[in-house]
Amino acid sequence: MSEEVLLARVKALEEEVGRLKAQLKVERDGAGTGERTEAPGSFKHQEGEENRARQKKRERPFDFSAHPRRHVALRLAYLGWQYQGFAVQENTDNTVEARLFEALLKTKLIQDRQTSNYHRCGRTDKGVSAFSQVISIDLRSTQCGGGLGVTVPADVEVKGKASAEELPYVKMLNRVLPQDIRILQWAPVESGFSARFDCQSRTYRYYFPRGDLDVELMAEAVKRYEGTHDFRNLCKMDVGNGVLQFQRTILSANVQPAQLNPTCPIDPHQLYVFQVKGLAFLYHQVRCMMALLLLIGQKLEAPEIIDQLLDVEKNPRKPQYSMAVDYPLVLYDCRFEGVNWNNEREEETHVLNSLHQHWVQNSVKTQVLLGMIQGLQNTNTEMTSLQCWLMEGSRQRKYTPLLERPRCESLESRIQHFVKRGRLEQEEGENGEETTVFKGKRSKHSHLTTTNQLQEQNHEAKTEENV
Amino acid sequence: MSEEVLLARVKALEEEVGRLKAQLKVERDGAGTGERTEAPGSFKHQEGEENRARQKKRERPFDFSAHPRRHVALRLAYLGWQYQGFAVQENTDNTVEARLFEALLKTKLIQDRQTSNYHRCGRTDKGVSAFSQVISIDLRSTQCGGGLGVTVPADVEVKGKASAEELPYVKMLNRVLPQDIRILQWAPVESGFSARFDCQSRTYRYYFPRGDLDVELMAEAVKRYEGTHDFRNLCKMDVGNGVLQFQRTILSANVQPAQLNPTCPIDPHQLYVFQVKGLAFLYHQVRCMMALLLLIGQKLEAPEIIDQLLDVEKNPRKPQYSMAVDYPLVLYDCRFEGVNWNNEREEETHVLNSLHQHWVQNSVKTQVLLGMIQGLQNTNTEMTSLQCWLMEGSRQRKYTPLLERPRCESLESRIQHFVKRGRLEQEEGENGEETTVFKGKRSKHSHLTTTNQLQEQNHEAKTEENV
Repeated sequence: MSEEVLLARVKALEEEVGRLKAQLKVERDGAGTGERTEAPGSFKHQEGEENRARQKKRERPFDFSAHPRRHVALRLAYLGWQYQGFAVQENTDNTVEARLFEALLKTKLIQDRQTSNYHRCGRTDKGVSAFSQVISIDLRSTQCGGGLGVTVPADVEVKGKASAEELPYVKMLNRVLPQDIRILQWAPVESGFSARFDCQSRTYRYYFPRGDLDVELMAEAVKRYEGTHDFRNLCKMDVGNGVLQFQRTILSANVQPAQLNPTCPIDPHQLYVFQVKGLAFLYHQVRCMMALLLLIGQKLEAPEIIDQLLDVEKNPRKPQYSMAVDYPLVLYDCRFEGVNWNNEREEETHVLNSLHQHWVQNSVKTQVLLGMIQGLQNTNTEMTSLQCWLMEGSRQRKYTPLLERPRCESLESRIQHFVKRGRLEQEEGENGEETTVFKGKRSKHSHLTTTNQLQEQNHEAKTEENV
Repeated sequence: MSEEVLLARVKALEEEVGRLKAQLKVERDGAGTGERTEAPGSFKHQEGEENRARQKKRERPFDFSAHPRRHVALRLAYLGWQYQGFAVQENTDNTVEARLFEALLKTKLIQDRQTSNYHRCGRTDKGVSAFSQVISIDLRSTQCGGGLGVTVPADVEVKGKASAEELPYVKMLNRVLPQDIRILQWAPVESGFSARFDCQSRTYRYYFPRGDLDVELMAEAVKRYEGTHDFRNLCKMDVGNGVLQFQRTILSANVQPAQLNPTCPIDPHQLYVFQVKGLAFLYHQVRCMMALLLLIGQKLEAPEIIDQLLDVEKNPRKPQYSMAVDYPLVLYDCRFEGVNWNNEREEETHVLNSLHQHWVQNSVKTQVLLGMIQGLQNTNTEMTSLQCWLMEGSRQRKYTPLLERPRCESLESRIQHFVKRGRLEQEEGENGEETTVFKGKRSKHSHLTTTNQLQEQNHEAKTEENV
């Protein structure tokens, strides 16, 4: 190909890149989600990176060892709609954690992830949001005089009197994080504190429109989830990642109107919320629980289906069914005992303003749509069925009861699969019963789990998986 | 630059283009608005166009003269958030009209725009939506036996009995239009019918959250708009396009809750609607009217400010103030006498489903945001001021009353400006008074206005401008 032609092609492509970036900015500004200036992978981004790299070489490296460090808990909120999940992934940079660690590194609050003693409370999936995600981590500190969770380097002078105020972690991080990820609070914690293992309970909310669902029936049925049950039929089993037992405890579960004083008469556009509080949750568990509730609300299944699927002796293999979609789900609360969260009035106000700005845009657009819907419904009086938009995958014309459907692989079969591959070992325990021990590298996210995998086994009932 | 380097650059740029397009698709799919496959200006789009051009050459040209044509009215709805306005523009392809004409040409319902006898009822601006935009146009017809508004070519055999059913205009167009533009109905009309000049009234809705506004005061004040007034201080004057007189008639104006049975107690998150019905509207008129209402609702201006700005003798020059933002505005209804709209039950159902799908997504996301807002407000009890998000431009710290602000150019001054440039002529009328006559090409959209500009002058009071 001649040089001329190539040059022309380069020029044309550069123009197209410019156009696409401008469009992307318009879309993103319109959605009001992020303030990321350069799309990752773009040439400007790359040039920016090269500049930064050059700048780094010129700067004196930051001497972390000269500073105290302290173990802290950070409470954060994020809108998950524009991300590929919370946890860092191999095949994409677009995760909440990736942005978080960029911010931690940029503010020099940590030296690197590997040595930052990082634990996370939950691992929300693509599209899922959080109002109360909690992480624990070691951050740079000013507290040369020590304090809760503070480690002062040996050669740093310990001042008699109280040191200056601690670094404004929340403000520092929010300044560099994208708008849709916000640190809400921080708390000093003991060096042994773990956001993952010390979490006492996690609460999720799933919002849905009433449509023509029997919400009263759903509100009754949901109580069957409470208690300790084997939820293998209400999750996506992740044996490959070492999840081998599926008993989980639901402390409370309810279905109610999202807003107090719901409108009368019965309004299909009224929003409801499925709220569930548990010790820990399995991969996609809440979305499977919601899927069952939607089937019950449509009277396609009886409330007893919950008990039947929780009865793993009668039903050792999960029927094939779609889970509920991702965007209505929010990790709403994580509880920790004895953690004193600092008040961050000013930062909270900023976050409130930002949330309000998005809320105004979203609620007004929602009303524009509703106005048109009501304009059409004057002449079109069919019942408003809305739940189809909440299920993954395509809708089947004829409904097949769950217990009549093909079944997925059983737990035992999956275990054997990994035993054969040498990833799991079956050993004889003290009483002669078989126990299965996870052995070797985990798939995908091995570098992200804690180094102490035995500790994980023991804490499995308290660990959080993708929901 | 060596060929190798150039080839590498081409490859890298092509990859970046691919990435950006994928991101753009994610953003657009996320916003749930359009099914446009290739971004305009992209190479694939260009290649697609080249293919289509080649295909055109190969096909036998469609013989429009062999078919009857009929004058029809089309009622359409669109979500304006992803478009640069309704009317075709020189500097962008991203308009509702552009998509509309693509569909009309693709379905071979028209031969070209210029000969299609096209009129539009309203010309909504960037970001503004419509539930009832109406256009009149000549479309291809099957009615060889004639009918209302039908013209049968001389050499086409007129059949004695009734011809086959008319073409399914609504279905044909909706199949090729983007999802966020929908034809709702069509109606046969007399050949002299004009969507622009025969419109009896236009109704706009502007949705806004209550926040801490005095909505009762706004509901009182809004009545001052009713009647016939000179609205030059409540619009963006467009003298360059021949708009020289600003008297407009408002048939009704009100402010009320968007939904019946508003919640008690007073809820800052309750949505209200400003609904205004008039014969015709000036450029940005509704958004200026809304801006004044918001100032009144904040008690920054008294309701009398409306009367004062409508008094063009006392206030011949408009104070500088921002109008309200675009996305809450909807052209909700256009009334025409004696037009019999066909029932399109099936199409209506499709549109309803599509609107419901978007509504579910939007309302659920709105609730996610509200849940977080309420979670923060438990500890943060400041009054919820929301109207700032509805004003264009940046907020001033200290409020300056409108009548104390700098003023914009007067109408007379603007007219002189164009007279000097030879675009307007001032003539002496019969009684000796001066009249101003528009002369010569209009700026920007001259090719889009009707050829009969005198007719336009006479009909100015009934014409629609960008709102």
